[in-house]
Amino acid sequence: MKEKSVSPVVIKRLPRYYRYLGELLGRGVARISSKDLSTLMGVTASQIRQDLNCFGGFGQQGYGYNVAELHKQIANILGLDRGYKTIIVGAGNLGKALAKHSNFRKRGFNLVGIFDADENLVGKEINGVEVQSSAAMDDFIKENKPDIAILALPKSAVEAEANRLVSLGVKGIWNFSYGELHLPDGVAVENVHLSDSLMTLSYKLTEIEE
Amino acid sequence: MKEKSVSPVVIKRLPRYYRYLGELLGRGVARISSKDLSTLMGVTASQIRQDLNCFGGFGQQGYGYNVAELHKQIANILGLDRGYKTIIVGAGNLGKALAKHSNFRKRGFNLVGIFDADENLVGKEINGVEVQSSAAMDDFIKENKPDIAILALPKSAVEAEANRLVSLGVKGIWNFSYGELHLPDGVAVENVHLSDSLMTLSYKLTEIEE
Repeated sequence: MKEKSVSPVVIKRLPRYYRYLGELLGRGVARISSKDLSTLMGVTASQIRQDLNCFGGFGQQGYGYNVAELHKQIANILGLDRGYKTIIVGAGNLGKALAKHSNFRKRGFNLVGIFDADENLVGKEINGVEVQSSAAMDDFIKENKPDIAILALPKSAVEAEANRLVSLGVKGIWNFSYGELHLPDGVAVENVHLSDSLMTLSYKLTEIEE
Repeated sequence: MKEKSVSPVVIKRLPRYYRYLGELLGRGVARISSKDLSTLMGVTASQIRQDLNCFGGFGQQGYGYNVAELHKQIANILGLDRGYKTIIVGAGNLGKALAKHSNFRKRGFNLVGIFDADENLVGKEINGVEVQSSAAMDDFIKENKPDIAILALPKSAVEAEANRLVSLGVKGIWNFSYGELHLPDGVAVENVHLSDSLMTLSYKLTEIEE
Protein backbone atom coordinates (compact mmCIF):
# COMPACT_ATOMS: atom_id res chain seq x y z
CA MET A 1 0.00 0.00 0.00
CA LYS A 2 2.72 2.43 0.90
CA GLU A 3 4.63 4.13 -1.86
CA LYS A 4 8.07 5.64 -1.55
CA SER A 5 8.96 9.32 -1.44
CA VAL A 6 5.76 10.64 0.06
CA SER A 7 6.24 14.32 0.73
CA PRO A 8 7.16 15.19 4.33
CA VAL A 9 4.24 17.65 4.36
CA VAL A 10 1.78 14.83 3.71
CA ILE A 11 3.43 12.67 6.33
CA LYS A 12 3.10 15.47 8.88
CA ARG A 13 -0.65 15.51 8.20
CA LEU A 14 -1.20 11.78 8.67
CA PRO A 15 -1.23 11.85 12.49
CA ARG A 16 -3.87 14.54 12.28
CA TYR A 17 -6.03 12.39 9.99
CA TYR A 18 -5.51 9.56 12.41
CA ARG A 19 -6.67 11.71 15.32
CA TYR A 20 -9.79 13.00 13.61
CA LEU A 21 -10.74 9.57 12.31
CA GLY A 22 -10.27 8.19 15.83
CA GLU A 23 -12.67 10.81 17.16
CA LEU A 24 -15.21 9.99 14.45
CA LEU A 25 -14.91 6.29 15.30
CA GLY A 26 -15.49 7.10 18.95
CA ARG A 27 -18.67 8.91 17.97
CA GLY A 28 -19.84 5.91 15.96
CA VAL A 29 -19.47 7.52 12.52
CA ALA A 30 -19.06 4.78 9.92
CA ARG A 31 -18.62 6.79 6.72
CA ILE A 32 -17.50 10.29 5.91
CA SER A 33 -17.23 12.20 2.66
CA SER A 34 -14.02 14.03 1.87
CA LYS A 35 -16.15 17.19 1.98
CA ASP A 36 -17.30 16.58 5.57
CA LEU A 37 -13.84 15.48 6.65
CA SER A 38 -12.44 18.64 5.10
CA THR A 39 -14.90 20.85 6.98
CA LEU A 40 -14.03 19.10 10.22
CA MET A 41 -10.29 19.42 9.70
CA GLY A 42 -10.24 22.84 8.11
CA VAL A 43 -8.45 21.76 4.93
CA THR A 44 -9.82 21.52 1.39
CA ALA A 45 -11.54 18.35 0.18
CA SER A 46 -9.19 18.15 -2.78
CA GLN A 47 -6.23 18.32 -0.37
CA ILE A 48 -7.63 15.34 1.50
CA ARG A 49 -8.20 13.33 -1.68
CA GLN A 50 -4.73 14.20 -2.86
CA ASP A 51 -3.11 13.27 0.46
CA LEU A 52 -4.83 9.94 0.71
CA ASN A 53 -4.12 9.18 -2.92
CA CYS A 54 -0.40 9.24 -2.06
CA PHE A 55 -1.04 5.96 -0.33
CA GLY A 56 -3.22 4.44 -3.00
CA GLY A 57 -6.47 6.15 -1.99
CA PHE A 58 -9.14 4.68 0.20
CA GLY A 59 -12.33 6.31 -0.96
CA GLN A 60 -14.86 5.36 -3.54
CA GLN A 61 -16.26 8.19 -5.62
CA GLY A 62 -19.62 9.19 -4.15
CA TYR A 63 -19.48 6.87 -1.18
CA GLY A 64 -16.96 8.65 1.00
CA TYR A 65 -14.48 6.95 3.25
CA ASN A 66 -15.06 4.00 5.51
CA VAL A 67 -13.89 5.54 8.78
CA ALA A 68 -12.77 2.34 10.52
CA GLU A 69 -10.95 1.09 7.44
CA LEU A 70 -9.18 4.40 6.79
CA HIS A 71 -8.24 4.68 10.47
CA LYS A 72 -6.74 1.21 10.36
CA GLN A 73 -4.88 1.86 7.11
CA ILE A 74 -3.35 5.06 8.43
CA ALA A 75 -2.33 3.24 11.62
CA ASN A 76 -0.60 0.73 9.36
CA ILE A 77 1.14 3.44 7.34
CA LEU A 78 2.29 5.15 10.53
CA GLY A 79 3.60 1.88 11.90
CA LEU A 80 1.26 1.93 14.89
CA ASP A 81 0.54 -1.76 14.43
CA ARG A 82 4.19 -2.73 14.76
CA GLY A 83 4.21 -2.71 18.56
CA TYR A 84 7.29 -0.49 18.72
CA LYS A 85 9.10 -0.83 22.02
CA THR A 86 10.04 2.42 23.70
CA ILE A 87 12.25 3.44 26.58
CA ILE A 88 12.33 6.77 28.38
CA VAL A 89 15.71 8.21 29.27
CA GLY A 90 15.32 10.72 32.09
CA ALA A 91 12.73 10.19 34.85
CA GLY A 92 12.24 13.82 35.87
CA ASN A 93 8.88 15.58 35.62
CA LEU A 94 8.80 15.47 31.83
CA GLY A 95 9.87 11.81 31.70
CA LYS A 96 7.18 10.98 34.25
CA ALA A 97 4.53 12.93 32.36
CA LEU A 98 5.45 11.11 29.14
CA ALA A 99 5.44 7.72 30.88
CA LYS A 100 1.89 8.42 32.05
CA HIS A 101 0.65 9.69 28.71
CA SER A 102 -2.20 7.28 28.07
CA ASN A 103 -2.39 7.98 24.35
CA PHE A 104 1.01 6.49 23.65
CA ARG A 105 -0.01 3.08 24.86
CA LYS A 106 -3.34 3.37 23.08
CA ARG A 107 -1.45 4.00 19.87
CA GLY A 108 0.51 0.81 20.14
CA PHE A 109 3.70 2.10 21.72
CA ASN A 110 4.95 -0.26 24.35
CA LEU A 111 6.92 1.32 27.21
CA VAL A 112 9.46 -1.29 28.30
CA GLY A 113 11.96 0.70 30.35
CA ILE A 114 12.69 3.99 32.13
CA PHE A 115 16.23 5.05 33.01
CA ASP A 116 17.78 7.79 35.09
CA ALA A 117 21.29 8.67 36.23
CA ASP A 118 19.91 9.72 39.63
CA GLU A 119 20.17 6.65 41.87
CA ASN A 120 17.50 8.14 44.17
CA LEU A 121 14.93 7.56 41.46
CA VAL A 122 15.98 3.97 40.74
CA GLY A 123 13.41 1.44 41.86
CA LYS A 124 10.49 3.88 41.79
CA GLU A 125 7.58 2.79 39.69
CA ILE A 126 6.00 5.03 37.06
CA ASN A 127 2.87 3.78 35.37
CA GLY A 128 3.85 0.21 36.15
CA VAL A 129 7.42 0.47 34.90
CA GLU A 130 10.34 0.54 37.34
CA VAL A 131 13.02 3.21 36.94
CA GLN A 132 16.40 1.59 36.30
CA SER A 133 19.87 2.97 36.70
CA SER A 134 21.38 4.57 33.64
CA ALA A 135 24.33 2.22 34.21
CA ALA A 136 22.07 -0.74 33.46
CA MET A 137 20.83 0.71 30.17
CA ASP A 138 23.39 -0.84 27.82
CA ASP A 139 22.66 -4.40 28.90
CA PHE A 140 18.94 -3.74 28.87
CA ILE A 141 19.05 -2.42 25.31
CA LYS A 142 21.16 -5.32 24.05
CA GLU A 143 18.69 -7.75 25.53
CA ASN A 144 15.37 -6.00 24.82
CA LYS A 145 16.16 -4.13 21.61
CA PRO A 146 13.84 -1.15 22.04
CA ASP A 147 12.93 0.67 18.82
CA ILE A 148 12.45 4.16 20.22
CA ALA A 149 14.22 6.11 22.96
CA ILE A 150 12.43 9.12 24.39
CA LEU A 151 14.97 11.66 25.60
CA ALA A 152 13.72 13.76 28.50
CA LEU A 153 17.15 14.96 29.54
CA PRO A 154 18.90 18.20 30.36
CA LYS A 155 20.45 19.81 27.29
CA SER A 156 23.96 19.12 28.55
CA ALA A 157 23.40 15.35 28.57
CA VAL A 158 21.36 14.82 25.45
CA GLU A 159 23.98 14.64 22.70
CA ALA A 160 26.11 12.05 24.52
CA GLU A 161 23.10 9.95 25.51
CA ALA A 162 21.69 10.03 21.99
CA ASN A 163 25.01 8.82 20.58
CA ARG A 164 25.18 6.10 23.22
CA LEU A 165 21.68 4.90 22.32
CA VAL A 166 22.39 4.93 18.60
CA SER A 167 25.62 2.99 19.08
CA LEU A 168 23.59 0.38 20.96
CA GLY A 169 21.29 0.01 17.97
CA VAL A 170 18.32 2.22 18.84
CA LYS A 171 16.88 3.48 15.54
CA GLY A 172 14.30 6.01 16.71
CA ILE A 173 15.03 9.06 18.87
CA TRP A 174 12.28 11.30 20.23
CA ASN A 175 14.08 14.29 21.61
CA PHE A 176 12.58 16.84 23.99
CA SER A 177 15.80 18.69 24.70
CA TYR A 178 16.65 22.02 23.25
CA GLY A 179 18.87 22.00 20.18
CA GLU A 180 19.01 19.67 17.22
CA LEU A 181 20.84 16.37 17.35
CA HIS A 182 23.41 15.36 14.78
CA LEU A 183 23.00 11.65 14.33
CA PRO A 184 24.10 9.27 11.58
CA ASP A 185 21.90 8.31 8.63
CA GLY A 186 19.64 5.39 9.29
CA VAL A 187 18.39 6.89 12.55
CA ALA A 188 14.96 8.50 12.71
CA VAL A 189 14.78 11.62 14.87
CA GLU A 190 11.89 13.82 15.92
CA ASN A 191 12.63 16.90 17.95
CA VAL A 192 9.91 18.46 20.06
CA HIS A 193 10.73 22.12 20.44
CA LEU A 194 8.24 23.25 23.04
CA SER A 195 9.48 26.80 23.08
CA ASP A 196 8.95 27.13 19.30
CA SER A 197 5.29 26.51 19.93
CA LEU A 198 5.20 29.02 22.79
CA MET A 199 6.91 31.62 20.60
CA THR A 200 4.38 31.01 17.84
CA LEU A 201 1.61 31.60 20.36
CA SER A 202 3.35 34.78 21.45
CA TYR A 203 3.43 35.99 17.84
CA LYS A 204 -0.28 35.29 17.45
CA LEU A 205 -0.94 37.30 20.61
CA THR A 206 0.93 40.30 19.23
CA GLU A 207 -1.34 40.15 16.18
CA ILE A 208 -4.45 40.16 18.36
CA GLU A 209 -3.20 43.13 20.32
CA GLU A 210 -2.63 45.25 17.22
CA MET B 1 8.70 46.82 10.96
CA LYS B 2 6.04 44.17 10.99
CA GLU B 3 3.71 43.90 8.04
CA LYS B 4 0.30 42.31 8.07
CA SER B 5 -0.68 38.95 6.58
CA VAL B 6 2.66 37.21 6.86
CA SER B 7 2.15 33.61 5.80
CA PRO B 8 1.68 31.13 8.66
CA VAL B 9 4.48 29.04 7.16
CA VAL B 10 6.94 31.90 7.58
CA ILE B 11 5.71 32.54 11.10
CA LYS B 12 6.29 28.90 11.97
CA ARG B 13 9.91 29.29 10.87
CA LEU B 14 10.63 32.39 12.96
CA PRO B 15 11.16 30.56 16.28
CA ARG B 16 13.66 28.37 14.47
CA TYR B 17 15.57 31.40 13.21
CA TYR B 18 15.47 32.74 16.72
CA ARG B 19 16.92 29.52 18.11
CA TYR B 20 19.74 29.31 15.59
CA LEU B 21 20.64 32.97 15.95
CA GLY B 22 20.69 32.55 19.72
CA GLU B 23 23.14 29.68 19.35
CA LEU B 24 25.34 31.75 17.03
CA LEU B 25 25.26 34.61 19.54
CA GLY B 26 26.28 32.21 22.28
CA ARG B 27 29.25 31.18 20.15
CA GLY B 28 30.24 34.81 19.64
CA VAL B 29 29.38 34.97 15.94
CA ALA B 30 28.73 38.61 14.99
CA ARG B 31 27.80 38.30 11.31
CA ILE B 32 26.47 35.54 9.11
CA SER B 33 25.71 35.39 5.41
CA SER B 34 22.37 34.03 4.28
CA LYS B 35 24.40 31.25 2.63
CA ASP B 36 26.03 30.15 5.91
CA LEU B 37 22.78 30.50 7.82
CA SER B 38 21.09 28.38 5.16
CA THR B 39 23.72 25.62 5.47
CA LEU B 40 23.33 25.63 9.24
CA MET B 41 19.54 25.47 9.11
CA GLY B 42 19.16 23.19 6.13
CA VAL B 43 17.01 25.56 4.06
CA THR B 44 17.92 27.47 0.92
CA ALA B 45 19.57 30.89 1.11
CA SER B 46 16.85 32.37 -1.07
CA GLN B 47 14.25 31.00 1.34
CA ILE B 48 15.96 32.80 4.19
CA ARG B 49 16.19 36.08 2.27
CA GLN B 50 12.55 35.76 1.28
CA ASP B 51 11.42 34.97 4.83
CA LEU B 52 13.25 37.87 6.39
CA ASN B 53 12.09 40.21 3.65
CA CYS B 54 8.51 39.63 4.84
CA PHE B 55 9.48 41.75 7.81
CA GLY B 56 11.35 44.41 5.90
CA GLY B 57 14.65 42.53 5.56
CA PHE B 58 17.61 42.91 7.86
CA GLY B 59 20.59 42.14 5.65
CA GLN B 60 22.79 44.28 3.51
CA GLN B 61 23.81 42.78 0.19
CA GLY B 62 27.31 41.32 0.55
CA TYR B 63 27.63 41.94 4.28
CA GLY B 64 25.34 39.28 5.65
CA TYR B 65 23.23 39.65 8.74
CA ASN B 66 24.20 41.22 12.03
CA VAL B 67 23.42 38.28 14.32
CA ALA B 68 22.65 40.27 17.48
CA GLU B 69 20.48 42.75 15.61
CA LEU B 70 18.55 40.06 13.73
CA HIS B 71 18.08 38.06 16.95
CA LYS B 72 16.68 41.14 18.67
CA GLN B 73 14.40 42.03 15.77
CA ILE B 74 12.96 38.52 15.62
CA ALA B 75 12.42 38.61 19.38
CA ASN B 76 10.49 41.81 18.81
CA ILE B 77 8.40 40.31 16.00
CA LEU B 78 7.64 37.27 18.15
CA GLY B 79 6.61 39.49 21.04
CA LEU B 80 9.31 38.10 23.32
CA ASP B 81 10.08 41.61 24.56
CA ARG B 82 6.54 42.20 25.79
CA GLY B 83 6.99 40.41 29.09
CA TYR B 84 3.90 38.28 28.60
CA LYS B 85 2.54 36.96 31.87
CA THR B 86 1.71 33.27 31.95
CA ILE B 87 -0.14 30.96 34.28
CA ILE B 88 -0.09 27.17 34.31
CA VAL B 89 -3.37 25.36 34.85
CA GLY B 90 -2.68 21.84 36.08
CA ALA B 91 0.24 21.11 38.41
CA GLY B 92 0.74 17.44 37.54
CA ASN B 93 3.98 16.12 36.09
CA LEU B 94 3.59 17.98 32.82
CA GLY B 95 2.64 21.23 34.53
CA LYS B 96 5.65 20.87 36.81
CA ALA B 97 7.98 20.13 33.91
CA LEU B 98 6.71 23.20 32.07
CA ALA B 99 7.05 25.40 35.16
CA LYS B 100 10.68 24.34 35.42
CA HIS B 101 11.45 24.82 31.72
CA SER B 102 14.27 27.33 31.94
CA ASN B 103 13.95 28.46 28.32
CA PHE B 104 10.53 29.99 28.84
CA ARG B 105 11.80 32.48 31.37
CA LYS B 106 14.88 33.15 29.24
CA ARG B 107 12.57 34.06 26.39
CA GLY B 108 10.77 36.66 28.37
CA PHE B 109 7.76 34.70 29.55
CA ASN B 110 6.93 35.50 33.11
CA LEU B 111 5.29 32.71 35.13
CA VAL B 112 3.00 34.42 37.62
CA GLY B 113 0.72 31.61 38.81
CA ILE B 114 0.11 27.86 38.93
CA PHE B 115 -3.30 26.39 39.66
CA ASP B 116 -4.66 22.95 40.40
CA ALA B 117 -8.01 21.53 41.42
CA ASP B 118 -6.26 19.05 43.73
CA GLU B 119 -6.14 20.71 47.16
CA ASN B 120 -3.25 18.41 48.14
CA LEU B 121 -1.03 20.28 45.71
CA VAL B 122 -2.05 23.74 46.89
CA GLY B 123 0.73 25.56 48.73
CA LYS B 124 3.53 23.51 47.16
CA GLU B 125 6.18 25.56 45.45
CA ILE B 126 7.34 24.86 41.91
CA ASN B 127 10.27 26.86 40.61
CA GLY B 128 9.51 29.62 43.09
CA VAL B 129 5.80 29.85 42.33
CA GLU B 130 3.22 28.54 44.79
CA VAL B 131 0.43 26.29 43.55
CA GLN B 132 -2.95 27.91 44.18
CA SER B 133 -6.38 26.39 44.32
CA SER B 134 -8.33 26.35 41.08
CA ALA B 135 -11.11 28.06 43.06
CA ALA B 136 -8.86 31.11 43.50
CA MET B 137 -8.10 31.40 39.79
CA ASP B 138 -10.89 33.78 38.77
CA ASP B 139 -9.92 36.45 41.28
CA PHE B 140 -6.25 36.01 40.48
CA ILE B 141 -6.85 36.50 36.76
CA LYS B 142 -9.02 39.57 37.28
CA GLU B 143 -6.30 41.11 39.40
CA ASN B 144 -3.15 40.02 37.54
CA LYS B 145 -4.40 39.82 33.95
CA PRO B 146 -2.14 37.07 32.64
CA ASP B 147 -1.72 37.00 28.86
CA ILE B 148 -1.17 33.27 28.40
CA ALA B 149 -2.64 30.22 30.10
CA ILE B 150 -0.77 26.96 29.73
CA LEU B 151 -3.21 24.05 29.92
CA ALA B 152 -1.67 20.89 31.33
CA LEU B 153 -4.96 19.23 32.13
CA PRO B 154 -6.70 15.92 31.54
CA LYS B 155 -8.68 15.87 28.31
CA SER B 156 -11.98 15.78 30.19
CA ALA B 157 -11.29 19.12 31.88
CA VAL B 158 -9.66 21.10 29.14
CA GLU B 159 -12.60 22.47 27.15
CA ALA B 160 -14.39 23.84 30.22
CA GLU B 161 -11.23 25.34 31.69
CA ALA B 162 -10.29 26.95 28.39
CA ASN B 163 -13.71 28.58 28.15
CA ARG B 164 -13.46 29.73 31.75
CA LEU B 165 -10.07 31.35 31.06
CA VAL B 166 -11.25 33.02 27.89
CA SER B 167 -14.34 34.41 29.62
CA LEU B 168 -11.99 35.90 32.22
CA GLY B 169 -10.10 37.70 29.49
CA VAL B 170 -7.10 35.44 28.83
CA LYS B 171 -6.14 35.91 25.19
CA GLY B 172 -3.51 33.23 24.70
CA ILE B 173 -4.05 29.50 25.25
CA TRP B 174 -1.22 26.97 25.04
CA ASN B 175 -2.92 23.61 25.10
CA PHE B 176 -1.20 20.29 25.78
CA SER B 177 -4.35 18.24 25.96
CA TYR B 178 -5.50 15.94 23.24
CA GLY B 179 -8.10 17.32 20.87
CA GLU B 180 -8.53 20.76 19.37
CA LEU B 181 -10.24 23.55 21.26
CA HIS B 182 -13.07 25.54 19.81
CA LEU B 183 -12.62 29.06 21.09
CA PRO B 184 -13.99 32.41 19.93
CA ASP B 185 -12.15 34.71 17.53
CA GLY B 186 -9.73 37.06 19.19
CA VAL B 187 -8.13 34.26 21.17
CA ALA B 188 -4.74 32.86 20.12
CA VAL B 189 -4.39 29.10 20.53
CA GLU B 190 -1.46 26.78 20.05
CA ASN B 191 -2.03 23.07 20.48
CA VAL B 192 0.89 20.80 21.26
CA HIS B 193 0.01 17.36 19.99
CA LEU B 194 2.77 15.23 21.42
CA SER B 195 1.43 12.03 19.97
CA ASP B 196 1.46 13.51 16.45
CA SER B 197 5.20 13.89 16.81
CA LEU B 198 5.57 10.34 18.12
CA MET B 199 3.50 9.01 15.22
CA THR B 200 5.68 10.92 12.77
CA LEU B 201 8.73 9.30 14.33
CA SER B 202 7.04 5.94 14.03
CA TYR B 203 6.46 6.56 10.32
CA LYS B 204 10.11 7.48 9.81
CA LEU B 205 11.09 4.24 11.56
CA THR B 206 8.96 2.16 9.20
CA GLU B 207 10.83 3.81 6.30
CA ILE B 208 14.20 2.87 7.80
CA GLU B 209 13.10 -0.71 8.28
CA GLU B 210 12.08 -1.16 4.67
